[in-house]
Amino acid sequence: MERIDRNALERFCTEVFIALGLPRDEALHSAEILVRADARGIASHGVARLWRYENGLRLGIMSGGIEPTVLRETPISLVLDANGAMGMSLSRKTMERVIGKAETSGVGFASIRNSNHFGIAGYYSEMAARSDMIGIAMTNTAALGVPTFGTAAMFGTNPIAVALPGNDGRIFSLDMSTTSVTRGKIEVYNREGNPLPSGWAVDPAGKVTGDAARLLDDMLFQRGGGLLPLGGAGEELGGHKGYGLAVLVDLMTAVLSGGTFGKSVMDSEATSARVCHFFGAIRLDLFRDPKELKSDVDTLLSELNGSPVAEGHEKVLWAGQKEQEAEARSAVEGVPLAANVVSRLKSIGKGLGIAFPGSLSG
Amino acid sequence: MERIDRNALERFCTEVFIALGLPRDEALHSAEILVRADARGIASHGVARLWRYENGLRLGIMSGGIEPTVLRETPISLVLDANGAMGMSLSRKTMERVIGKAETSGVGFASIRNSNHFGIAGYYSEMAARSDMIGIAMTNTAALGVPTFGTAAMFGTNPIAVALPGNDGRIFSLDMSTTSVTRGKIEVYNREGNPLPSGWAVDPAGKVTGDAARLLDDMLFQRGGGLLPLGGAGEELGGHKGYGLAVLVDLMTAVLSGGTFGKSVMDSEATSARVCHFFGAIRLDLFRDPKELKSDVDTLLSELNGSPVAEGHEKVLWAGQKEQEAEARSAVEGVPLAANVVSRLKSIGKGLGIAFPGSLSG
Repeated sequence: MERIDRNALERFCTEVFIALGLPRDEALHSAEILVRADARGIASHGVARLWRYENGLRLGIMSGGIEPTVLRETPISLVLDANGAMGMSLSRKTMERVIGKAETSGVGFASIRNSNHFGIAGYYSEMAARSDMIGIAMTNTAALGVPTFGTAAMFGTNPIAVALPGNDGRIFSLDMSTTSVTRGKIEVYNREGNPLPSGWAVDPAGKVTGDAARLLDDMLFQRGGGLLPLGGAGEELGGHKGYGLAVLVDLMTAVLSGGTFGKSVMDSEATSARVCHFFGAIRLDLFRDPKELKSDVDTLLSELNGSPVAEGHEKVLWAGQKEQEAEARSAVEGVPLAANVVSRLKSIGKGLGIAFPGSLSG
Repeated sequence: MERIDRNALERFCTEVFIALGLPRDEALHSAEILVRADARGIASHGVARLWRYENGLRLGIMSGGIEPTVLRETPISLVLDANGAMGMSLSRKTMERVIGKAETSGVGFASIRNSNHFGIAGYYSEMAARSDMIGIAMTNTAALGVPTFGTAAMFGTNPIAVALPGNDGRIFSLDMSTTSVTRGKIEVYNREGNPLPSGWAVDPAGKVTGDAARLLDDMLFQRGGGLLPLGGAGEELGGHKGYGLAVLVDLMTAVLSGGTFGKSVMDSEATSARVCHFFGAIRLDLFRDPKELKSDVDTLLSELNGSPVAEGHEKVLWAGQKEQEAEARSAVEGVPLAANVVSRLKSIGKGLGIAFPGSLSG
């Protein structure tokens, strides 16, 4: 593990994106959102993905400078066809418009089709929370998840993020995939040769499987099987609830915007998955004086922190707390990156003539 | 199991509520919402609860004819203090106002404090769906749920309901508690002497427990322990996600309205739990032509129904489908009621001089 200065890492990524052909604003936004993930300890969604963008932009599967088409707009809503634009920058700009609508009209919503991966959903919901609003962000993703009592992938990991602010920068920030786990977790278990916990995935017959290697292979060649929804197999532990949440995300992102949903969302050689997003912002002062409201958020979160802890654990946390503490640490000590990620970034930089920043510790 | 004509059962319950002192409209609404639950096969939330209302109204813990106070109102939002009004009728009237706001302004939201149990959350979200809107309903409930790595009850079963319409009366209708299961399920396992599945509940030390009798006792006397969030114990299967969803419901219902949240929500001898609700309605035509949008909802739901089925199961269903099929059957064959529920209702009726309708089958 090395730690890299956050600003220096953002500058490096920005220069890489510019060298790959992105306009300056898109490069800045994409770099900021990727680095934010690492700063928060969500390495799966961070700069380790830079090679995918390098690859996509080089092959023309992704490209910069694409303008979305407005399909429908009202003072409180917006529907866009992204036309295959870069997901992170488009999503940031759209959330800004949604927040602007909420500032004027109390609420704002947007649904977007034909976009690309947008990084961490919580980035966008927290933008609204910082403006004294309830923030919402969702995206559908390539189909990997199997419905309750099914055997075939019919939905993605379909994350839902909702954020509400407390005082002093504290934000209740729920950002969760609606499957038990994401593919990245399966890959880790495969690399380490560990059996998967029961409740993560099923084989092509719909039976719970612990075989990570076979699962990844079956998913890759679309032989059936895939990830289980939050709540696991069957209905006993509530798998039908996670399944319902995953379908809800498809409805809010793809059905509201007229985009691609369910089993049809997949990467091809010619394009990335053309995913769909949903964003929302609802002003707190529709309900109460924001200051009083945020004090009650603080009280609720403090009560959770102060509640008694199970044996073998340290503290009861609230959604987003671990990530906000990691981000504060990253600001002081630098952003943590695994050694193999650093060497990959160095090699991307070398190919483009861009120097990778030195390590703060390592 | 007996089957009772739906209209006759509603009339019986209405007369009981009127005899117990509810105004006619509150009696009608309460009867309709309770019977709807039974018609849909959700017996836990149906007329089996009538005795609780009888008890509450007789003891003065609940009473009819209470008017809510408007705390804040805009063309798109409403905040109410229910002043302890009957939850079902108040919620139905509030959802009508929310739908009216959405008809005029595109969206409507309401947050309500100091209310009473409102029955099935899906009743309200589906009201909006039938008006070509996305419908949302949530409520907090008495604290029974234990946070990830905690040992004490810090939130209720806190259900979330979201509904979107397809064509021909079909409604995607997700209505889920955010705990793995509700207390009712634990009571069933206790009666039948079965051990609880791992992932449902923890003991006062925060360890997963299978002992239903002891759990119910520990919860009753607030010794610690309680229900696990959706996703179960720890983080391995995503229990922290269910925990986050439960807290989100507290924020949307109680913190937005200035009501009681978290561990402080509980029944006392003098009052019921004074729960808080949230309702939302968002017009479909903000996003697309509703007819086209609903056709895509149909396509998505049909693809799920048509997807391959795991061994030992019959069909892949979507959220709300089982309940909608049960309701169609109840319309023809009558509403199914367990024999012990029928005898309890007969005895309530006898005490008030109200005849219970005859059985259609038995």
